[in-house]
Amino acid sequence: MISAINIKDRRFKLDSGAGSDAIHRDPVYSYAVTELIDDSGITGTGFAFTLGEGNDLVCKAAAFYAEQLKGKDIEELMHHFGKVFNQLSNEQQFRWLGPHKGVVHLALASVTNACYDLWAKKRGVPLWKLLIDLSPEQIVNTLDLSYIEDELTRAEAIQLLQDKQGSKSERSGIIESGYPGYDTSIGWFSYDDEKVRANCKKAIEEGFTAMKLKVGSADPQRDIRRSNIVREVAGSDVKVMLDANQQWTLPQALSICKELQSMQPYWIEEPTHPDDVLAHMTLADTIAPIKLALGEHVPNKVIFKNYLQADCAGFIQVDAVRVGGVSEFITVSLMCKKYGIPVVPHVGDMGQLHQHLVLFNHIAMGHEALFLEHIPHLQKHFVHPAVIKNGVYQTPQVAGSTCELKNQ
Amino acid sequence: MISAINIKDRRFKLDSGAGSDAIHRDPVYSYAVTELIDDSGITGTGFAFTLGEGNDLVCKAAAFYAEQLKGKDIEELMHHFGKVFNQLSNEQQFRWLGPHKGVVHLALASVTNACYDLWAKKRGVPLWKLLIDLSPEQIVNTLDLSYIEDELTRAEAIQLLQDKQGSKSERSGIIESGYPGYDTSIGWFSYDDEKVRANCKKAIEEGFTAMKLKVGSADPQRDIRRSNIVREVAGSDVKVMLDANQQWTLPQALSICKELQSMQPYWIEEPTHPDDVLAHMTLADTIAPIKLALGEHVPNKVIFKNYLQADCAGFIQVDAVRVGGVSEFITVSLMCKKYGIPVVPHVGDMGQLHQHLVLFNHIAMGHEALFLEHIPHLQKHFVHPAVIKNGVYQTPQVAGSTCELKNQ
Repeated sequence: MISAINIKDRRFKLDSGAGSDAIHRDPVYSYAVTELIDDSGITGTGFAFTLGEGNDLVCKAAAFYAEQLKGKDIEELMHHFGKVFNQLSNEQQFRWLGPHKGVVHLALASVTNACYDLWAKKRGVPLWKLLIDLSPEQIVNTLDLSYIEDELTRAEAIQLLQDKQGSKSERSGIIESGYPGYDTSIGWFSYDDEKVRANCKKAIEEGFTAMKLKVGSADPQRDIRRSNIVREVAGSDVKVMLDANQQWTLPQALSICKELQSMQPYWIEEPTHPDDVLAHMTLADTIAPIKLALGEHVPNKVIFKNYLQADCAGFIQVDAVRVGGVSEFITVSLMCKKYGIPVVPHVGDMGQLHQHLVLFNHIAMGHEALFLEHIPHLQKHFVHPAVIKNGVYQTPQVAGSTCELKNQ
Repeated sequence: MISAINIKDRRFKLDSGAGSDAIHRDPVYSYAVTELIDDSGITGTGFAFTLGEGNDLVCKAAAFYAEQLKGKDIEELMHHFGKVFNQLSNEQQFRWLGPHKGVVHLALASVTNACYDLWAKKRGVPLWKLLIDLSPEQIVNTLDLSYIEDELTRAEAIQLLQDKQGSKSERSGIIESGYPGYDTSIGWFSYDDEKVRANCKKAIEEGFTAMKLKVGSADPQRDIRRSNIVREVAGSDVKVMLDANQQWTLPQALSICKELQSMQPYWIEEPTHPDDVLAHMTLADTIAPIKLALGEHVPNKVIFKNYLQADCAGFIQVDAVRVGGVSEFITVSLMCKKYGIPVVPHVGDMGQLHQHLVLFNHIAMGHEALFLEHIPHLQKHFVHPAVIKNGVYQTPQVAGSTCELKNQ
C-alpha cells in the first residue's frame, strides 16, 4: 500500500553551453520528482523533465495527483491503470488547466512514472522485463485509449500486441547485444565550429554511428556550414540528424530545408511550432524524400494521432517525461506501429527510463530497433546511470526503471 | 511606471448545479488576478479563468511574468507590446512548460490583460474606445504574429484593419444600441428538465433571442429530449445552441449529431477533444449544414490557425482569459476575419472584458455583431458588473476593461 508521498524539485546546472539550442540558450536540466513510498519499504520514483524555471509548478501539480494514490495498492492500481490515468487526467476542476498538456500533464508523467517504477520494484524486475512479460490484455489495461477510438480501439491495440507475441524471442537477442544509441551532445547550439568538429571525431571514436547537430541560426549559412563540417568529419555512412528546435517559421523552414538537402540529413527535427500540424504537412510534402522528426514538445496522444493521420512525421519522438508517462508513451507507440512509423524518443530522462521502453517497443511491439538518443550530462546524478559501450546502451539489470537520483 | 505587483487567488462557489456541464460537474469559478500598480496611483487589473483547483499555479506563473514588467512605463510597453508578448511567452526556460499552452499561457493572459486595463485607465477611456481609436499600425504593434506568417503577415494584418477604417462610423451605432447577448445559464448539465423549461421561458421574457443547452449525456436520449424541450419553449425563431463540452468521442459525435439535426441547432459546440483538428474536419464534413463552434479550450493562435485552415469551425470561440489575453484574442480575430468566420467568444470573464473586445471586432475589424455569451453568476463580485437589458449588453463607460473584483 502506498503510505507516503515525497515530491522533490531537483535542478542541475550544466557546463557552459551544454544543452543549448536555437530556442533554449541556457537551460538548467531539472526534474519534478515523485516518490511513492510503499509500506513494504520500497519507493517508486518517477519524474518529469523541465528546463529549470517553473519546475516547482510541476512539483505542486504532481503532489495534487500523487495524494490521490495514498492508501492504494500498486498491483491493484496497475491492474486497471488506464482507468486511473483517465480519472486523474480528467479531474473536473484541474482539467481546465490543460486539458492534457502543459504543467498538469508533465506532473501526471511524474506520478505515472513513479507508479511503473514501484510496480517493477515490487516485482523485483527491471521495467523492460515487467512490460515484456505482460500479456497483451494486461498491457492494454494500463492504457487510456479515450479520444483515439477512431484510430485505435481496445481490440485493435490487443491485436497489434498479439500479432507479435509468437516472435518475441526472435527479437530478444537485443537484451544481450544492447540497444544502439546516438549522440546528441556533439553539436549544442552555442558550441563553436571547432568544438563541434572535435566532438564529432570523439563520438565516432566512441563507436557512435549516428549523431545530431543543433541548427536554427538567425544566419542560415551558419547552419549549412556546421552541417557540412559534421558530414565531412563523419563521412557518408554515419547518420547525421539536424535539430531546429522550433526556431523556423514555415516560410523559413521551406527555404532552409531545401538548402540543407545536399548534406543528406537522416532527418530534420522540430522545424517549427509543435502545435502546427498543417505546417508540418506542407513542409513534409515539399522536402520529401527528406523526413521530419517531431514529438519532443507534443503533449498528448490526441495531437500525435493528428500527426500520424496527417502523414508528415517520418520519426515520432514521443517522450515519456513530456506526455503522461509510460502509459501514454505506450499508447502513442501502438498508434505509430499501426501507421508503420518508427518511435525514436526524445530523452528528457537522459535515457534512464527510455532504455526500458525501447526494448519493450522492439521486442513486444515489433518496432524496429533504430537507436536511442544519448545525453551524458546528468550521469553522475543517477544511482544507476545508463551505461553506453561502443555507442550501445547496455541493458539494465536492476529492479525498477533506473530513475532514482542520488541525494543532494 | 509600474512600481508594484499584486497577485490574487480569487475563488467563487456557485449555487447548486450552476456552471455544470458534461465534463465539469462541480466547478468553482476562479480568477488568477494580476494587479499592476502604477506610480501614478492607478491599478491595472487582469485575470485568467479557471475552475478552482490549481488556480494557485496560474497565480504563481503570473507572478513570474509580472515581475518582469516592474519599472516599465505602460505607454512604452504597449507601443510595442507584440515584442513584449513574444519575449515573455518564449522565456527560454519557462517556455518548456508549454509552449504557449496550459498554466503558463493562462498566466500570460492574466498579465497581458492587466497591461491593457492599465493602459486604458491611464488614458481615462473604456478599453473598447482605446482600441477603436488606435491606428491599424498601432493595433498591429500590440500583436505577436510569430508562427502564423504563412497566414497573416504584418502587412496583411494592417491591411485588414485599414480596409475598415473608412466605414467605422457606419458601425458605431452599436455603442448606443448595445451588443446582443445570449443566455448560457438556462440549461446547465445537472439542471432537471423542469428547471430547463422554466429558465428557457424566463430568458425569453428577459428578451434573449438566443440560448444554449448543455448536452453530452451518457444517455443520448436525455440530450435529445432536453433539446426538444428548449426548441418547443423557444419556438422556431430563437437560436438554440448545443454544447457538448468535449464529452463525445469522434464515433459518438458522428452518431449523436445526426440525431440532433432535426431540432435545428444554430451550432454544436465542443463536440470532442479540443486538440483534435482532424476529428473536427471529419465531423464538420459529415454533419453539414449544421455548424461547429469551438475555441473555449484552444490555447493559442497556432492551433486556431490550423482550425481555420482545416475549414471545420463555423464559429470561433476564442476566449481572452484562455489564450494569451487581449493581444492574442485580436490576433485570432484578424485571422478569423481573413477567413470570414464569426468570432463569438467564450466568456470565462463573464463578459466583463469581452464586451469591449466584440465592440472593437465589429467596429474596427468589420466582424458581424452576432451576440456575446452571458453568464450572470459572478455579477455581484465585480465593481462594474456588465449590464444586460432586454438581452442586450449596455456599453460600459468607465475607464479600463471593467475587470476589477470587489475586495473580499
